[in-house]
Amino acid sequence: MKKNALYAQSGGVTSVINASASAVILEARKSKKIVKVYAAKNGILGALREDLIDTSKESKKFIESLQFRPGGVFGSCRYKLKDINENLLEYERLIEVFEAHNIGYFFYNGGNDSADTALKISQISNKLNYPLQCIAIPKTVDNDLAVTDCCPGFGSVAKYIVTSTIEAALDVESMCETSTKVFILEVMGRHAGWIAGSSCIAQESHPNAPHIILLPEVNFNQVKFLAKVKQMVKKNGFCVIVASEGVKNSKGKFLAESDSVDAFGHSQLGGVAPYLAGLINKKLKLKNHWAVADYLQRSATHLSSEVDRIHAYQVGKKAVQYAMKGFNGVMPVIKRKSSSPYKWEIVPAPLKKIANVEKKLPAGFIASDGFGMTNKARQYFKPLIGGKSKEIKNTNYQAGKMEMIPKKLKAWR
Amino acid sequence: MKKNALYAQSGGVTSVINASASAVILEARKSKKIVKVYAAKNGILGALREDLIDTSKESKKFIESLQFRPGGVFGSCRYKLKDINENLLEYERLIEVFEAHNIGYFFYNGGNDSADTALKISQISNKLNYPLQCIAIPKTVDNDLAVTDCCPGFGSVAKYIVTSTIEAALDVESMCETSTKVFILEVMGRHAGWIAGSSCIAQESHPNAPHIILLPEVNFNQVKFLAKVKQMVKKNGFCVIVASEGVKNSKGKFLAESDSVDAFGHSQLGGVAPYLAGLINKKLKLKNHWAVADYLQRSATHLSSEVDRIHAYQVGKKAVQYAMKGFNGVMPVIKRKSSSPYKWEIVPAPLKKIANVEKKLPAGFIASDGFGMTNKARQYFKPLIGGKSKEIKNTNYQAGKMEMIPKKLKAWR
Repeated sequence: MKKNALYAQSGGVTSVINASASAVILEARKSKKIVKVYAAKNGILGALREDLIDTSKESKKFIESLQFRPGGVFGSCRYKLKDINENLLEYERLIEVFEAHNIGYFFYNGGNDSADTALKISQISNKLNYPLQCIAIPKTVDNDLAVTDCCPGFGSVAKYIVTSTIEAALDVESMCETSTKVFILEVMGRHAGWIAGSSCIAQESHPNAPHIILLPEVNFNQVKFLAKVKQMVKKNGFCVIVASEGVKNSKGKFLAESDSVDAFGHSQLGGVAPYLAGLINKKLKLKNHWAVADYLQRSATHLSSEVDRIHAYQVGKKAVQYAMKGFNGVMPVIKRKSSSPYKWEIVPAPLKKIANVEKKLPAGFIASDGFGMTNKARQYFKPLIGGKSKEIKNTNYQAGKMEMIPKKLKAWR
Repeated sequence: MKKNALYAQSGGVTSVINASASAVILEARKSKKIVKVYAAKNGILGALREDLIDTSKESKKFIESLQFRPGGVFGSCRYKLKDINENLLEYERLIEVFEAHNIGYFFYNGGNDSADTALKISQISNKLNYPLQCIAIPKTVDNDLAVTDCCPGFGSVAKYIVTSTIEAALDVESMCETSTKVFILEVMGRHAGWIAGSSCIAQESHPNAPHIILLPEVNFNQVKFLAKVKQMVKKNGFCVIVASEGVKNSKGKFLAESDSVDAFGHSQLGGVAPYLAGLINKKLKLKNHWAVADYLQRSATHLSSEVDRIHAYQVGKKAVQYAMKGFNGVMPVIKRKSSSPYKWEIVPAPLKKIANVEKKLPAGFIASDGFGMTNKARQYFKPLIGGKSKEIKNTNYQAGKMEMIPKKLKAWR
């Protein structure tokens, strides 16, 4: 019997998550087993609320254009389903919605939380005797999913950080004699330093920045840090620092939340750069500037890595193909076969191995002084930012029709 | 008699200042009156110190590639010559250096301070009977030079801000139900709101952000601001704010330096975004994120506006042509003939009209509520961000030979 498919986005968006959406919809349109692809509005909340967008109403052109569209086109959310034992109702509601709309395939596009949710939904549907195939599609700028070599979304952020670091370093270099000596770029990465680490690729360009990389994996040592800044300014005339938002002190507390410096008052992360700037002002009296890339880094489709976009597209396409082959509770993951030349393939991996696991930077990637990356890391990062950027011809993004299907159930909650 | 030319960069660099350098050198190479173009290392300081780079040693390919190179390739500086009455020695030293190296043409690439310096040097050379032609070449991301319709460097920053605002707004829109409701992008502009104002072009794309633009020209009114944020979140589900670093309170004090909120402790500008975030946290309790673009915006050659780059190139070229025609104490400026289709030409303007004058946003560009731009402003900004972006094929920037010519004088100071 032919079934409908449901696609949902989860958690923080990336500049290529819509490439996965595009692939799922286009590949499903080719399938003889799938009637329609519905997209949950604002992620899993849309599934619970029966807020389902009928993607069959969207033109092929619109769906294709999603490959180059920032944000999450159907909406995403930060909402983690509770454990089955704690809240069976939510899972039962999902199955009820799936049943009401003849949904036989669920594609959940997210990180390790979402892998866990997809796994649980697949287990509960089995328990309730509702035939459902759950496939999780990897996505996260944090690059912290287990099993897969890399995560769609990460390569584009890496390209943004590398490009921005090179450009800002050339700027600072030109002015350093009479102006800014230290430049700090704060990047995402709360618990894993993949994004900050990737900035090492910028060192291949003149003027060899960044000189210091700060990672959540390495406890911040103020004395060593200040000595390194001083040394770099003496040697180069200036110092460029790329700092993860999640840099921690020796007590495991985020620097951005630390009380030891009075640089700011709020506890939300995103303040490592001003924290470090305050420290450098106070202790070294060196003129400095800082930038916080925040959402700009993960939404910069204009700088997205072609390799990353192809990864994002291919995992979406494979997800549908796996579903058609009868797979359940798996995620298409990227397996690296060679770094130079870059060769890779997509293989299925069981969600059990991915759910709730967080992959940090391997120790072998971090230079012995804790302020840089090794050649091994360089080999890893380099191919992920490869390929062309998207030429910005038209940034007049359209909203899409976003036609909702009629609800059949009682309102949820 | 054939003479050498001296080219120097001044003040904050832009993503297209090297396009002007490229044009000056290539055009001068064609001239029969100019022997060599020297470039002052680190701006006017290099001229005072006799640190002169022989650009004739650089390949044509390298000089051409400068059109797409961030930063200031010969170095720039923040160093304003004192008034002639206060410090005649500096001016005499410059003339001494010019004489020692047979320099008959001085091209000074900068903002209104530099226009003033070029004017004074031209006057003093006249007084000292040293034959010199001084031409200032416009450059500033701040877009605050008088007479010229726009300043090379500005269009590219505007394009960066427009692109980033659209991308971040699409990101925030996707997540706003359960996550960030307010996003703040802090941009440059200490005294004039041209950069923040240009973000209005982003409103042509879905989802019509920014919803609020904060300018140095409009005193910050906390009550009105918070009401507007609340209203925008209610209406759209989220609110995107673009704020000039130079937003001031009703007493004319920079918000980023204000004591009224304890969000941070340092007095350096570049803290309006965290200030506003603190305010929104405290008064509206709305989840927010903020980004500070800082140097990324003015060094982003990968996003530079083609129109802007052509402007930068053409003012450099015209500067040499004006010198060859015998002009002195002038600046090639951009004169707009039509906005749509965009038509412009370059004409000479006397430095007297430009030196030390700061052009702010005209009142007719600012919407009546002070939080947006008028259609007149839109017509002004639109063509300046036009044309293609540069495809990033190779970011492996090289240092150049940067061969210094032998010194002939005593060390300066």
